Amino acid sequence: MGTSVVRYTTQSSTAQWGVLKEGSVYALAVDSDHHRDLIELYNNDRIAFDSAIKSEGVAADTVEFLSPISQRIQLYVQGMNYHSHRKEGGVFNEEDVDLEDDENLLFYKASSTISKPNETIVRPKTCELLDYEIELGFVLKADMLTETDVNDDNLGDYVGGFVLANDVSARDFMFGAPALQWFKGKSQRTFCPLGPVLYLLEGDDIKQIHAMELKLHLNGKLMQHGTTDQLIHKPAKTLRDLSEFSNLHTGDCILTGTPGGVLANFNLKTALAILFNMKNDRNRRKKFTQAQLAQTDFLKPGDVLELQIKSLDGSIDLGQQKNAIADA
Amino acid sequence: MGTSVVRYTTQSSTAQWGVLKEGSVYALAVDSDHHRDLIELYNNDRIAFDSAIKSEGVAADTVEFLSPISQRIQLYVQGMNYHSHRKEGGVFNEEDVDLEDDENLLFYKASSTISKPNETIVRPKTCELLDYEIELGFVLKADMLTETDVNDDNLGDYVGGFVLANDVSARDFMFGAPALQWFKGKSQRTFCPLGPVLYLLEGDDIKQIHAMELKLHLNGKLMQHGTTDQLIHKPAKTLRDLSEFSNLHTGDCILTGTPGGVLANFNLKTALAILFNMKNDRNRRKKFTQAQLAQTDFLKPGDVLELQIKSLDGSIDLGQQKNAIADA
Repeated sequence: MGTSVVRYTTQSSTAQWGVLKEGSVYALAVDSDHHRDLIELYNNDRIAFDSAIKSEGVAADTVEFLSPISQRIQLYVQGMNYHSHRKEGGVFNEEDVDLEDDENLLFYKASSTISKPNETIVRPKTCELLDYEIELGFVLKADMLTETDVNDDNLGDYVGGFVLANDVSARDFMFGAPALQWFKGKSQRTFCPLGPVLYLLEGDDIKQIHAMELKLHLNGKLMQHGTTDQLIHKPAKTLRDLSEFSNLHTGDCILTGTPGGVLANFNLKTALAILFNMKNDRNRRKKFTQAQLAQTDFLKPGDVLELQIKSLDGSIDLGQQKNAIADA
Repeated sequence: MGTSVVRYTTQSSTAQWGVLKEGSVYALAVDSDHHRDLIELYNNDRIAFDSAIKSEGVAADTVEFLSPISQRIQLYVQGMNYHSHRKEGGVFNEEDVDLEDDENLLFYKASSTISKPNETIVRPKTCELLDYEIELGFVLKADMLTETDVNDDNLGDYVGGFVLANDVSARDFMFGAPALQWFKGKSQRTFCPLGPVLYLLEGDDIKQIHAMELKLHLNGKLMQHGTTDQLIHKPAKTLRDLSEFSNLHTGDCILTGTPGGVLANFNLKTALAILFNMKNDRNRRKKFTQAQLAQTDFLKPGDVLELQIKSLDGSIDLGQQKNAIADA
């Protein structure tokens, strides 16, 4: 069994590391504010890591959790990586495409989006289509500076931990952007609550990467429910794909995409709003927004999101997030 | 007048900093491999910076220049920021849009693309539409962690230096990607030769940000020629726009877009190849590639690129790049 690392404050202490175990947080005396150093210590000198854990704990419900992942990383995200989300995403024609050989949709999310697991999500000025995406994130424990043949047998040499993520998205910013670039719509501050747990893997834990169960509730109603065995481009292939063109570093984080059940849903009217307004960003955003709002409400102040990810066998628990929504 | 910083090796030395002056390089004894530390020293303790410059120089043509910008930064890029490039880009209908109020196209380029100014550019496997984009890059000298009202009067408080950049682009990867995301097509290794000079600003130098002249030659023929007074979204507005949603740090680099004259050119056939194949990435890439190759050759082994940027008044010279092309 691995170790559930958290970062937290108490009423009497500033930000510090801890280990979460059976409802208590035990301070972890490591002199660094970057999880990269923690991951390296965990994997290179377990005796030093374990002896840095204090013996006296505090109740987990008395602390405030911070993100266990520093903002000083590269944050890669996969899009359209569950069948159920591709269907509602509508960009793809599943009948025409052999998905196994299909290109992995990889994009970048500004790491300044990383926020506390229970942070209020801020709806930016002029945003009308604020949406959620629960995702399993995995964190690297090694640098990858050349194209690397990753497969399920050696995946554990590269993946050091798991984390619960919400890839918050402004759909109007995404599909109204010039040349339809998603970067801005994905990269607003508070758009990536992470944690509370950074689960550092041990032994056979890596196998659970294919057996994690994701659940997202909006105002108490289950909206997203998936398991990572449904991922189209699996983590090993995704690391192969990323390492083929870019350099990855210990501590970098990859979010693996979201299952169906987000608020955006691409019906015919939405598709036409995009197609007929390819050359005019403002008209496209306006028509797209109208088509989406005619179908459903998007996130607004007063809404409450609750997210959780656990392994199906119960051995790994990445904790819960609970987020309010507020206007900028 | 500011200072032209370079990073270089000689036959007898590993990577080190230097100052380029009248054809000679003078070693700069600063104990850091990150330009962030250099920028901070330059702006916070000029006496220490100046006294770190050795008095004995070597001829610039005897050294190998490295990128003066570390890969450990955030690398933001503007798209479609010159009228002449928008016209050939064809995505926009200039008659219908008030460009001043139009959205700034901002995207992210993996910082592992950063390479030596004279590095060979590697055409990735399966890439058929390799293209160049000369751009003025500017480098931050301050963190920007909240929305910041930047204007031409205070721009010099944030911009610390200028650098010559080539935003190399795989057009088939960009427009064949799922949901048309540019990240992968912009983010291949060797896709961002930077330097040789990181020009650190002094006094009134910041004003030259609007008066830099860019020239790119392909096999001796002038292909791109523009000046930064033609930028649609000026640097001050761009920093306002970026700071509105994300955090920027000292040393981060923003590439300001490219003038007309790239190899890709969006005629009607190209536009239709995209529009009629929105749902099928492979068909879109194939048709788009056919339409582009019917018009022009793209970069291939044997081609030579030469780039240079200077201020119109000759006071600032960012140096030259000369790049060969090779297959992966």
